[in-house]
Amino acid sequence: MDIVEELLKGNRLALSRAITAIENEYDEAVDIMKRLYPHTGHAFVLGITGPPGAGKSTLTDKLAKAYRAQGKTVGIIAIDPTSPFTGGAILGDRIRMNGLTMDEGVFIRSMGTRGSLGGLSHKTADAIKAMDAFGKDVIFVETVGVGQSEVDIVKAADTTMVVLIPGMGDDIQAIKAGILEIGDVFTINKADHDGADKLVRELNMMLDLDAHGMQAEQTSTEKALADQFHHLNVAKHAEGMAWRPPIQKVIASQNEGITETIENIEKHFKYISETGILQQRRTQRTKNEMLDVLHSNIGKYITGKLSATGKLDEYVAQIKARETDPYTVVANIMQDMLKE
Amino acid sequence: MDIVEELLKGNRLALSRAITAIENEYDEAVDIMKRLYPHTGHAFVLGITGPPGAGKSTLTDKLAKAYRAQGKTVGIIAIDPTSPFTGGAILGDRIRMNGLTMDEGVFIRSMGTRGSLGGLSHKTADAIKAMDAFGKDVIFVETVGVGQSEVDIVKAADTTMVVLIPGMGDDIQAIKAGILEIGDVFTINKADHDGADKLVRELNMMLDLDAHGMQAEQTSTEKALADQFHHLNVAKHAEGMAWRPPIQKVIASQNEGITETIENIEKHFKYISETGILQQRRTQRTKNEMLDVLHSNIGKYITGKLSATGKLDEYVAQIKARETDPYTVVANIMQDMLKE
Repeated sequence: MDIVEELLKGNRLALSRAITAIENEYDEAVDIMKRLYPHTGHAFVLGITGPPGAGKSTLTDKLAKAYRAQGKTVGIIAIDPTSPFTGGAILGDRIRMNGLTMDEGVFIRSMGTRGSLGGLSHKTADAIKAMDAFGKDVIFVETVGVGQSEVDIVKAADTTMVVLIPGMGDDIQAIKAGILEIGDVFTINKADHDGADKLVRELNMMLDLDAHGMQAEQTSTEKALADQFHHLNVAKHAEGMAWRPPIQKVIASQNEGITETIENIEKHFKYISETGILQQRRTQRTKNEMLDVLHSNIGKYITGKLSATGKLDEYVAQIKARETDPYTVVANIMQDMLKE
Repeated sequence: MDIVEELLKGNRLALSRAITAIENEYDEAVDIMKRLYPHTGHAFVLGITGPPGAGKSTLTDKLAKAYRAQGKTVGIIAIDPTSPFTGGAILGDRIRMNGLTMDEGVFIRSMGTRGSLGGLSHKTADAIKAMDAFGKDVIFVETVGVGQSEVDIVKAADTTMVVLIPGMGDDIQAIKAGILEIGDVFTINKADHDGADKLVRELNMMLDLDAHGMQAEQTSTEKALADQFHHLNVAKHAEGMAWRPPIQKVIASQNEGITETIENIEKHFKYISETGILQQRRTQRTKNEMLDVLHSNIGKYITGKLSATGKLDEYVAQIKARETDPYTVVANIMQDMLKE
């Protein structure tokens, strides 16, 4: 079958094959993406990220059902942390979100973190485009994790929701530092667990920092954090980002707080649409995606050429013997391969 | 001062400045690395990774003290998940591992995940080399997280320790899938918490899979996982990897299991040294690092050139208007910039 024609007609098998081609970097993927590209740009993309154990899959399930109840079609891309050697979204589709799999209006796909990260973020971007061209109204991109890779992936979203839970231990402070700025909407899941209110208070404090004089109520840790974050808030305001990310307590497993979360997401989308921020973000995203593809393709081309000529192994042997160093070798290769 | 000369003499301030230059990509960093390179290759590099909240900092603290008690000098590089926009290891050095900071034989450095990931993994590799040239006997690289980025970073290690804790919720299965193969040594921290024995049993089951016929004792989830992992184990054995990763229960905060963990690490190092695997790993690492630097530098060069000529914004506008697509643009740029 012609994958592109069938996909544009709404054939789910064609969508599935297109994403498989993207994921495995089949030659036909480039042709598929070229032809799908003019049909993209209509879907709303929601990024969902947060640390392991935050219950993101359950939350995604509930949110997807809420959008379905509004009559919207939904695509879900779940990024799985998988083996660096064999790749593949091992636990994948089968275990996740079983309640949704019978609904024809929902298309769920897991993608593994095989290969390079640049690779993953542009593969994810292409999978979003395939679902967009297919006609999905809302596309969720869910990542397990809090690292830079996950952040890069959710940067492909129009609106990013950060999911946290109470009682994550020491690392939560560092995590919050990493995600504070990417969250357009915060969700505190498992809000019936101990520490939920403390977490809400800490987040509020960080987000409100220079709007209110809360120093008097701060603990010494909060004070130290507040000092650290001061410049971030200043930077945000300088960009004219007047949006104050809302924080919603949720118990996803009991469907509590889901309606409010959807409202928060919709308010954010309305805000970015009206202020022009949506268009700015999409322009930035187009730029990032194009550079991602460029860097990835050039990397592959040059590595392939070095391997084929046997030069790669020669260089490595020389570096390992300390006859030269990686920087000198890289400069030589660039001179050999780049014009001008 | 001449940073390289001073660093090689054992000046801690020089080491600190060298890593700052690496982290911020100062021009002098390349020169520093070229000159340090001949003095590297002596340190033992231990990677420590695991999900947030696993107590890796406490464990690192105890392990570092144990190595110090053996008379070995220690370098610690802690990778912090930080803001994608402003960067920086915000909570950094001050909060972590206070007990060690007074010991002259220990050098601790946090590095933030600012900028690109390829960037981070080669910056980490260079920081390891700076500590190696400085004369550190053992260098720890600790990452918070379980994503591909963290995996790439710990791949710079001779021996990789994976730290898990009981009761991580749903995501733990996916996490285990991702890290099963990178762990040379497993540590179950907080082993006094509920579920420690279950976690040990599950890990053992996965690691032993095709050596023993444990199917009869498996739960259905374990069975499903076992099926998934079968091909991984086959692949491992085909490579002649006869090492069976040990699993040690630890309560780091009470110093329990630390001696046994150090023994496991030393056994692994002895094993890889005697079988030649250490040399293979270091050759592979040299190759990966060189390619990392190459891809990063070429990417920077080309992006810089496109920006300077105004072509980048032109291309982005054309793509966004759907007059062309990212793949066509990338092919054109590669033709413009690469020889042949």
